[in-house]
Amino acid sequence: MPTSESLRAAVVGASGFVGGELLRLLSGHPRVGALRAFSESGVGKTWAEVHPALTHVAAGRFEAGDPVAVRSWADVTFLALPHGRSQLLAGEFLDTAPRLVVDMSADFRIADRGLYEAAYGPHAAFEQVQGFTYGLADRLGEALAGKARIATPGCFATAALLALWPFAGRLAAPASVFAVTGSSGAGVEPRRTTHHPVRAHSFFAYSLAGHRHEAEIVCQLRGWGCGQPCRLIAHAAPLVRGIHATAHLRLVEPVPQPGLLLAEVYAGRPFVRVLERPPELAAVVGTNFAHLHAVPRDGGREVLVTVAIDNLVKGAAGQAVQAANLALSLGETAGLTFPGLYPC
Amino acid sequence: MPTSESLRAAVVGASGFVGGELLRLLSGHPRVGALRAFSESGVGKTWAEVHPALTHVAAGRFEAGDPVAVRSWADVTFLALPHGRSQLLAGEFLDTAPRLVVDMSADFRIADRGLYEAAYGPHAAFEQVQGFTYGLADRLGEALAGKARIATPGCFATAALLALWPFAGRLAAPASVFAVTGSSGAGVEPRRTTHHPVRAHSFFAYSLAGHRHEAEIVCQLRGWGCGQPCRLIAHAAPLVRGIHATAHLRLVEPVPQPGLLLAEVYAGRPFVRVLERPPELAAVVGTNFAHLHAVPRDGGREVLVTVAIDNLVKGAAGQAVQAANLALSLGETAGLTFPGLYPC
Amino acid sequence: MPTSESLRAAVVGASGFVGGELLRLLSGHPRVGALRAFSESGVGKTWAEVHPALTHVAAGRFEAGDPVAVRSWADVTFLALPHGRSQLLAGEFLDTAPRLVVDMSADFRIADRGLYEAAYGPHAAFEQVQGFTYGLADRLGEALAGKARIATPGCFATAALLALWPFAGRLAAPASVFAVTGSSGAGVEPRRTTHHPVRAHSFFAYSLAGHRHEAEIVCQLRGWGCGQPCRLIAHAAPLVRGIHATAHLRLVEPVPQPGLLLAEVYAGRPFVRVLERPPELAAVVGTNFAHLHAVPRDGGREVLVTVAIDNLVKGAAGQAVQAANLALSLGETAGLTFPGLYPC
Amino acid sequence: MPTSESLRAAVVGASGFVGGELLRLLSGHPRVGALRAFSESGVGKTWAEVHPALTHVAAGRFEAGDPVAVRSWADVTFLALPHGRSQLLAGEFLDTAPRLVVDMSADFRIADRGLYEAAYGPHAAFEQVQGFTYGLADRLGEALAGKARIATPGCFATAALLALWPFAGRLAAPASVFAVTGSSGAGVEPRRTTHHPVRAHSFFAYSLAGHRHEAEIVCQLRGWGCGQPCRLIAHAAPLVRGIHATAHLRLVEPVPQPGLLLAEVYAGRPFVRVLERPPELAAVVGTNFAHLHAVPRDGGREVLVTVAIDNLVKGAAGQAVQAANLALSLGETAGLTFPGLYPC
Repeated sequence: MPTSESLRAAVVGASGFVGGELLRLLSGHPRVGALRAFSESGVGKTWAEVHPALTHVAAGRFEAGDPVAVRSWADVTFLALPHGRSQLLAGEFLDTAPRLVVDMSADFRIADRGLYEAAYGPHAAFEQVQGFTYGLADRLGEALAGKARIATPGCFATAALLALWPFAGRLAAPASVFAVTGSSGAGVEPRRTTHHPVRAHSFFAYSLAGHRHEAEIVCQLRGWGCGQPCRLIAHAAPLVRGIHATAHLRLVEPVPQPGLLLAEVYAGRPFVRVLERPPELAAVVGTNFAHLHAVPRDGGREVLVTVAIDNLVKGAAGQAVQAANLALSLGETAGLTFPGLYPC
Repeated sequence: MPTSESLRAAVVGASGFVGGELLRLLSGHPRVGALRAFSESGVGKTWAEVHPALTHVAAGRFEAGDPVAVRSWADVTFLALPHGRSQLLAGEFLDTAPRLVVDMSADFRIADRGLYEAAYGPHAAFEQVQGFTYGLADRLGEALAGKARIATPGCFATAALLALWPFAGRLAAPASVFAVTGSSGAGVEPRRTTHHPVRAHSFFAYSLAGHRHEAEIVCQLRGWGCGQPCRLIAHAAPLVRGIHATAHLRLVEPVPQPGLLLAEVYAGRPFVRVLERPPELAAVVGTNFAHLHAVPRDGGREVLVTVAIDNLVKGAAGQAVQAANLALSLGETAGLTFPGLYPC
Repeated sequence: MPTSESLRAAVVGASGFVGGELLRLLSGHPRVGALRAFSESGVGKTWAEVHPALTHVAAGRFEAGDPVAVRSWADVTFLALPHGRSQLLAGEFLDTAPRLVVDMSADFRIADRGLYEAAYGPHAAFEQVQGFTYGLADRLGEALAGKARIATPGCFATAALLALWPFAGRLAAPASVFAVTGSSGAGVEPRRTTHHPVRAHSFFAYSLAGHRHEAEIVCQLRGWGCGQPCRLIAHAAPLVRGIHATAHLRLVEPVPQPGLLLAEVYAGRPFVRVLERPPELAAVVGTNFAHLHAVPRDGGREVLVTVAIDNLVKGAAGQAVQAANLALSLGETAGLTFPGLYPC
Repeated sequence: MPTSESLRAAVVGASGFVGGELLRLLSGHPRVGALRAFSESGVGKTWAEVHPALTHVAAGRFEAGDPVAVRSWADVTFLALPHGRSQLLAGEFLDTAPRLVVDMSADFRIADRGLYEAAYGPHAAFEQVQGFTYGLADRLGEALAGKARIATPGCFATAALLALWPFAGRLAAPASVFAVTGSSGAGVEPRRTTHHPVRAHSFFAYSLAGHRHEAEIVCQLRGWGCGQPCRLIAHAAPLVRGIHATAHLRLVEPVPQPGLLLAEVYAGRPFVRVLERPPELAAVVGTNFAHLHAVPRDGGREVLVTVAIDNLVKGAAGQAVQAANLALSLGETAGLTFPGLYPC
C-alpha cells in the first residue's frame, strides 16, 4: 500500500465508551481520510451528542448498524460490539470483509475452545478464531504487519500480559495478579456497581472464582511455553479510567534486577516505559502508554511488577489503532502520540 | 402519652436510600420499641442485604407493601414512597391511620393547588393537603406538638428555607439560591446522570427553568408574608451526600451583621449551628445538623447566606424523625445526636 | 512575520500546574520550533519528572530562573509566576523584552489602581499596567493582533465574563455569579483545603466578602459601560479540573430568548459553543472550549447563564496560547484543537 | 473494678485523625465519665475546631501536651503519637502510669528487635516492648482481660492478620497480601501524595521493597508457628477511609470451603462478619466491623481472602477502644455498636 494513501475506517458499535474512543483517535489519525460510525442505539444522533469529547473534533452522525454494508467501503473496520455479537457476523461479514478487521470483543481472543467456553459459553463460529491474531501490540510490534484479522486483548489481560511476558518462562508457581479497574470498564449502561452513590467511595473484589480475562491470559501463557496458571484477582475502584495491576511472581531462579530485564525486553517499544518507581495511574490516563516497574523480593526469587494503563486507550481503542497501524504498515505511533492530562 | 411508652414505627417504601436512613435512625431511637419495614421490591430480603449500613444494628426483613395493614399497628408511619404514590393512599390509609403519619414525598407539601400542579401535575387527593403540616422542624420546633399529619420538606427546600426564613420579611428582589446536591438525592435506581463514569468528575446545572422544589419554597415564602419569588438553581456535584446552598439576597434595608440575625433567629434550636466561617459540607454529612453562615455585601444591602446539610438526614429521614419527636413530644433530639464522620 | 517562521517560546515559572499546561500545549504547537522552561524550584529536573503528562511528548530540563536572560532569545514569553512576582520584573524585563509577553498573574489585569490595591495590596509598577491588554481571547479575537503585552484573565473571571459580556449593557442589578472550582486551581503546593481527606467529599464557599477576581470582572464591566457590580461567589468542589459558573442576571428589559443572544454574540468564535442544554463540566475538561447555555426566567426579565471551562486550559494556559496566536497572527486555533477525554 | 464505675480517659496526641476518632468514640462511650485531650499543636483550641465531627457531641479544649501529668488522673490513656514518640515516654510515663495504657504507634508492636529495627531504626526503650500485648482484639478477645499495656496493630496489619490467622498454620508459600488504603491513613498533614489534584483520580503502589507493617505481620505469624513470610503490597487509592486487603494463599493441603473455616474461627466474635460475597468497603466505613470473605481456587489448594475495614476505626481507634473494653472488662462492644453510613 502506498503510504500516501488515505484510508477509510469504520467503527461498528460506536456508541459505547470504546466506540467513542475509537472515533476520537481515528478522527485525529493522520492517515484516516474518511470515517463512518455504525450504531443501532445511536442512529440519527450526532457523534457529539453521544460522545461529548467529539464536539470539537468530528461532526458525523451514527448510521444504522448493518456492518455488512461496510465491507465494500472500509479499509479497516473496528468491531466494538458486545461479547458474542461479532461471532454472529462470521458468515456474512468476516469471510468477505476486505483488508483489515479489528475485533474488540472476546470472541476471537482465545484459541483454546475449552478455555473460551468455560469463560463465555458456547461459540457460534469457533472455526473463525484461528484466523485471528491476538493483538497484544506492545509485544508483537512488526509481527502484526500484514495481518487481516486481529482480536484486541481485554483491558485486564493487556496489563497482566505486559507484566508477565518478560517472566513467562521463569515462573515457579501460579502468578498472582491483583488488578484494579475504573468504572468506565463496565461500559456505558448504568448498573448497580457503577451507580455513583454506591461506587464513589467504595472498593471491592469481584469474579474471585476466576475472572473471564484469565482465560486469555492463560491461553497466551501456554503459547509462550509457560505451564503455570494465573490468578487474575479483579477489583473495582472509585476511578473512572485506568487499570492498575500488580503481579507477584515466584521464579525458578532469581532475577535480582527485574527492572533491567523489563527494560531489555521492552527496549525500543514506543508505548512502553519502564520506570524507576511505581507508576502513577494518572500519568497514563488518556494516553496509549503502559508504565511498568519491577522490584525484587527475597533476592529476586520473587518479583513484584506494577503496570498502569488507560483501560479505554491502551486497554482497548488505542491498542486497536496501534495494531491496525502495524498491520497496515502506517507507522506504529501514527495518531497515538498525544499527551495525557496531569493533573486530571 | 406517657413518656415511658415504647413506640411502634413503620416505614413504607423502605428499600430506597431514604427508607434505609429511616431504618437506621429508628433502629437506634431510644423510644422505638418495634419497627417494621414495607417494600414491594424488597420483600423477603433482610434489611442488611438492601442497606449494608444496617448489617450490624438491625435484623429485620422487608414485608409485602400493603401499608393499609399497618394502620392498626403503628404509632407512627413514615411513607417513603415515590412522588405521587402517597396521594393514592388517601382514601384507604390516611383517613384512618392512627396517630402520626409522616410523608416524605412532595404530595402534601404544597398547599397551593396551582403551584403544586405546575410542578407535579394533577393531584389525586388535593383535599388531603390541608390536613398536613409542612414539617420544617428547625423553624417550627414545639409548634409541631400534637400534629398527626406531617409532610417533610424536600432536601433542597430544607436548605433554602433555613437560609431564607430569617430574611423573608426583608427581601427586595427575587431570592437567588444556588444549590448543589450529591448523587444520593437521585435515589437508588441507576440512571445516566448518576452513572459513575459520567458523574464522578463532572458538575452541571439542571431544571433551570424552575426546579420543582421552588414550588415548596415559594409556597412557604408566601405564607411568611414574603411577596418575592425564589429562583432555586439546582446543580449536581460529584458528591454522594449533602446539599450546599448559597443564597444571594437583596434586602429592603441593610442588615450589616446578618450572622447575628441568624444566631438570634436560631437561638436554642438544637440542630442549627450558626458558624463564623462558611460551612464545610463534610462536617454535617451523616448528621441531622444544619450549619449556616452569613456575610454582608454592600454594607448589608445584600447578604450571602451559606447552608450545609446532609440531604438524606436533615434533608429527609433525620428531619422526619425530628418532626415525629416533636409531634409525639418524645424530646426533639431523641435518637438524633450522633456525630458525623470526619474526614469521611 | 512570515507565517512559515518557526517561533521560540519561553515559559517562566514552569513548574506549577499552569506552567505544565503551557509546556504541554506549546510542545504540540505547530508553529513553536524551540521551547525553554525556567523554574527556580525545578532547576535540573526533566520536565517529565515534574509534569508526568509530558513524559511522552517533550524532553527538556528546567533552567535556572532568570527570565531576563530570555529576552534576547524568545519570540514569546509566558510568565507563569505567583501574583506579585511579574511586577518586580518590570524595569529589567518588560521594558526590553522583545515582541510578546503574556503574563498569567493578576499583576497587569486591572487598570484601576483602587480596584487592584483593594484586592491585592500595593503594586510595585502600576504604570506598566496600561501597556497590557486584558486578554479575554474569546471576546477580543482579532482585536488582539499585534499586541505585545497581554495579561491573561483569571480562571473565575474568564468564566464569569464570558457569561456576562452578552448582557453587560442590560443589567438592572448586581450580577450574581455562583462559581465552582476544582482543586487544581489552588496550585501545586499542598495545603489544608486541598488535602485529599478534607477535600474529596466536601464542598464549601470561600472569600465571600469578595473574591479577588471580582476586581477584574468589575474593571471589565465598567469598561463595557456597565455600572452594576458583580458578586463572584466562589466555591470549592471535589473536582480536580474545571470551573462551572452560573450567573443569575436581572435585566432592564426582557430577553425572552437569551440563548439566541448568546449564539449571536459568539457566532464564529471558534472556542465558544452555545448549547441547548446546561453544559456538563466533564465535556470541556482538557480542552480550550467554553460551553455556554442560557434560559429565561420571568419571561426574560431574569436570565440564568451557565458556563463550563477547564480552569488550567481555557482559564489559563489555553487562553494564553490563543491570545498569543492572535497577537502573532498564527491562526487563532493553532495547537488548540485537541479533543477532551470523556468519560474522564 | 465494679462495673458501675465511671472511667477517666485521656488521649495524648489528640489532634490527628486517629486522635479525633478516639475522642469521637470515647465521647459516646457509656462507661467514660471524664475525657481529656492533650495536643501540642492544638493547645487552646476546642476539639470541634480541629475535629468538625465533634461539633455536636463534645465540648472540650486541648490541653498542653505533658502526658506525665495525666498518669495520676486517667484510668486509661491512649497514646496517639507519631512513631518513635511513645518510646521516649518510657521512663517517666510508662513505668508509673496507672492501670491501662493503649499505644497506637508502632513502638511496642514488634517483639523481635531485628524486625523492628530493620523497619523503623533504633529503639530507645526496647526492653519495654515485652510488657506490651499486641492488641489484635478480634483474635484475642477475652485474652486481653487484665492487660495493662496494649500496642494497637497497624491498619494494614489488622486487615492482613484477620485474613491470615485462620490459615496461618497451613501456608505452603509466602503469603501475598495486596492491600489498598484511603488517604486518611497518611495523616492530617498535607503532602504531595495526598494533594487532591494528584490523588483524586490516581492509584499507585508504594513501599514495594517491604512495607513497615510487614514486620508486624511476620512477627505475629512466627508467634503462631508459621514459618512463611508475608509480602504486604501496599497501594494508595482515591478513597478517604478504608483498608481493603486481598490475600492470595497457597496451602499445604486443600481447604475446599475456606468460607466455612473463616466462619468457624470467628464464630461469636462480635465485630467480624464472614460474608458470602466479597465485602464492599463502603459497608464498613465508619464502623468497627471487619467484613471477610474467602473463595477457593484449584480445589482449595489456593485461597483468596478479602477483608474490608475502616482504617481509622477498626484499624486504629475502634480497635483500641475494643481492646480497652476487653482489658478493663467493660463489655467488648461498649460504645462501638454504631452503624456506618450507606451510601456515604
